[in-house]
Amino acid sequence: MRTYEVKTRVRYQETDQMGIVYYANFFVYFEMGRTELLRELGLPYSELEKEHIYFPVIEAHCRFRSPAQYDDILIIQTSISELKHATLKFNYTIVRENDRNRIAEGFTKLACLNVNRKPIPIPEKLKKLLQ
Amino acid sequence: MRTYEVKTRVRYQETDQMGIVYYANFFVYFEMGRTELLRELGLPYSELEKEHIYFPVIEAHCRFRSPAQYDDILIIQTSISELKHATLKFNYTIVRENDRNRIAEGFTKLACLNVNRKPIPIPEKLKKLLQ
Amino acid sequence: MRTYEVKTRVRYQETDQMGIVYYANFFVYFEMGRTELLRELGLPYSELEKEHIYFPVIEAHCRFRSPAQYDDILIIQTSISELKHATLKFNYTIVRENDRNRIAEGFTKLACLNVNRKPIPIPEKLKKLLQ
Amino acid sequence: MRTYEVKTRVRYQETDQMGIVYYANFFVYFEMGRTELLRELGLPYSELEKEHIYFPVIEAHCRFRSPAQYDDILIIQTSISELKHATLKFNYTIVRENDRNRIAEGFTKLACLNVNRKPIPIPEKLKKLLQ
Repeated sequence: MRTYEVKTRVRYQETDQMGIVYYANFFVYFEMGRTELLRELGLPYSELEKEHIYFPVIEAHCRFRSPAQYDDILIIQTSISELKHATLKFNYTIVRENDRNRIAEGFTKLACLNVNRKPIPIPEKLKKLLQ
Repeated sequence: MRTYEVKTRVRYQETDQMGIVYYANFFVYFEMGRTELLRELGLPYSELEKEHIYFPVIEAHCRFRSPAQYDDILIIQTSISELKHATLKFNYTIVRENDRNRIAEGFTKLACLNVNRKPIPIPEKLKKLLQ
Repeated sequence: MRTYEVKTRVRYQETDQMGIVYYANFFVYFEMGRTELLRELGLPYSELEKEHIYFPVIEAHCRFRSPAQYDDILIIQTSISELKHATLKFNYTIVRENDRNRIAEGFTKLACLNVNRKPIPIPEKLKKLLQ
Repeated sequence: MRTYEVKTRVRYQETDQMGIVYYANFFVYFEMGRTELLRELGLPYSELEKEHIYFPVIEAHCRFRSPAQYDDILIIQTSISELKHATLKFNYTIVRENDRNRIAEGFTKLACLNVNRKPIPIPEKLKKLLQ
């Protein structure tokens, strides 16, 4: 199960008054992770939507292990952990670059929808690339 | 020039590590202000988009007078300050409810676009209601 | 187990190009839910932080049942589902006001930290009010 | 007047239902721009705050020239346009990498505050580096 990496630097906007990254922002980092994974597989998500294939999130989970701070460089590690008939699951681990501390880990489950936003099986050509 | 009001309570998410509302969020409050103004004029923006009329922001400005904190109730006061052939300008003042302190003031200028996202004159029926 | 409610109207900012509320925003709605629950219990979270008691999220989960759209009024229903020595768990259900559709449900688990951001037992006076 | 550059890729979260980057997010890109400018001048903003020097935004302006889309790579060009006794102004231009289209341009004015969040003159050692 290959892991794909993308880095992001924590923006001031992403902090809250506790002085750490606000928890919901980790799900935005997860989105960056799966975007890069799909791009590296040759399936940019922007292209999928142009073909009217949509992958909305139907379930999301995160454990916050250690706080991240403003200006930290975070490494988002993403892999595909489950590929079913009509759903897809990504696993994520977020690590701080400078001390390799594990910051957070989680998953998202996505459904496949067509142009009418109805659930469909994941198209075969996608499935092959995702395997 | 009538002024319309809507209130919002500052979310933890909207604060930053300075312990105050992050500056870009005031433009989100401005959006809430113009949404309510249009609704009260009988022109819910959600209806306009269903008729394929779009009003993207083409210019925005804000002066930040005094910081707002988590859990503050803010009053967003909105008025139309300019109605031209193809653009519309809103003025905003944001006041904290409990001490009536002026927190911020600004404006946004919006263009009118059609379904192809091309600039068009503001439709006459809208113009009448906006005057 | 009492449930507390707070409403919010979906902002344009909270939508994404799929035309629905971006998934991470539901965790912001969850934050609004627990803020109101604590306020109604007489424990405004803003007061807790003034006494240097912090409740960062250590785990979060959400199932997205049905999409929410711009301008929808959402009802956030929050209850305390677990009260342990040093952690606290909130359950959330999000329902659209006009059709009572269930939009999302989830939980967050929070740790209790002191001024040095070290884990501490939940103070007794809080525990009583939370029970 | 030297210009500093930093790139960012548009996140799905940053789009709205118009299918373009939501306007307030450009002010977040501006924040990334000034963060990088200060870092390259040897004054990381995270270090300034550790010395209890804060630079909140007191005025912000943006003209939105052309829409940006999901997955676009944007180049944020930042320069210092005004250095006064107690305030500092940054100018920004945002350009899309692939077609060099000008997307937005604007400025932010920042005040200098001390540990008590009171306005102070910009410390001399900073001023020298900023000139």
